[in-house]
Amino acid sequence: MATPEEIRATIEAYAARMSARDKEGWLALFADDATFEDPVGSPVLVDRGQLAAFFDQTMALATELQLVIDRPITVCGDEAVMVFHVESLVGDQRYRVDIVDVFRVDDAGLITSQRAFWEPASLQPISM
Amino acid sequence: MATPEEIRATIEAYAARMSARDKEGWLALFADDATFEDPVGSPVLVDRGQLAAFFDQTMALATELQLVIDRPITVCGDEAVMVFHVESLVGDQRYRVDIVDVFRVDDAGLITSQRAFWEPASLQPISM
Repeated sequence: MATPEEIRATIEAYAARMSARDKEGWLALFADDATFEDPVGSPVLVDRGQLAAFFDQTMALATELQLVIDRPITVCGDEAVMVFHVESLVGDQRYRVDIVDVFRVDDAGLITSQRAFWEPASLQPISM
Repeated sequence: MATPEEIRATIEAYAARMSARDKEGWLALFADDATFEDPVGSPVLVDRGQLAAFFDQTMALATELQLVIDRPITVCGDEAVMVFHVESLVGDQRYRVDIVDVFRVDDAGLITSQRAFWEPASLQPISM
């Protein structure tokens, strides 16, 4: 099992690389057989091509997108939870949405499962 | 599927009834076949007798115990996530621990799965 420090580092890189629009770096954090459900209840993505398409679609939505971690990442065994919010810029408007991501990480420190809890209705415009 | 409002009400009652030390009310929120993993990685509890023992053990640890919800509860399909912290009084000392609970709720609004993400090492003494 990856150590808690390794798991935390993977999750922090997940947030940092998405914020930096670093697609290849972000994709490199996933195991080949990873599953990805964002938001929970939507179709589960199951291969790297689908993850790449998710990344592209997300980046196309917003010219800026920052994942801000709101609490220390919690690690339990090979799982971890990240409480964060996303600030995005869509056209001239900034938005904020609160999210909780649940991850499972393999022995190599790669993500095998991501499940993101957020409600589209909770997206809030914020002042610039 | 229970409505988001029903799911939110069940989760709010989970927090309120534990804070009120209302054992029977708390147990009534679970389906008969519920599973309970608190913290994630510990043995999964699988029947009402085990849940009752967990409740008794938790109450025996602390003379006061308040679950304080820190963000709006997020509902995705039949699942929900609650970001909260617990303030407890153990002897003369107060403690705080941050927790994220993930729930699954059945058609009747009863909990079928609870998984609690928290790290014992993150328990912090706080001033009274």
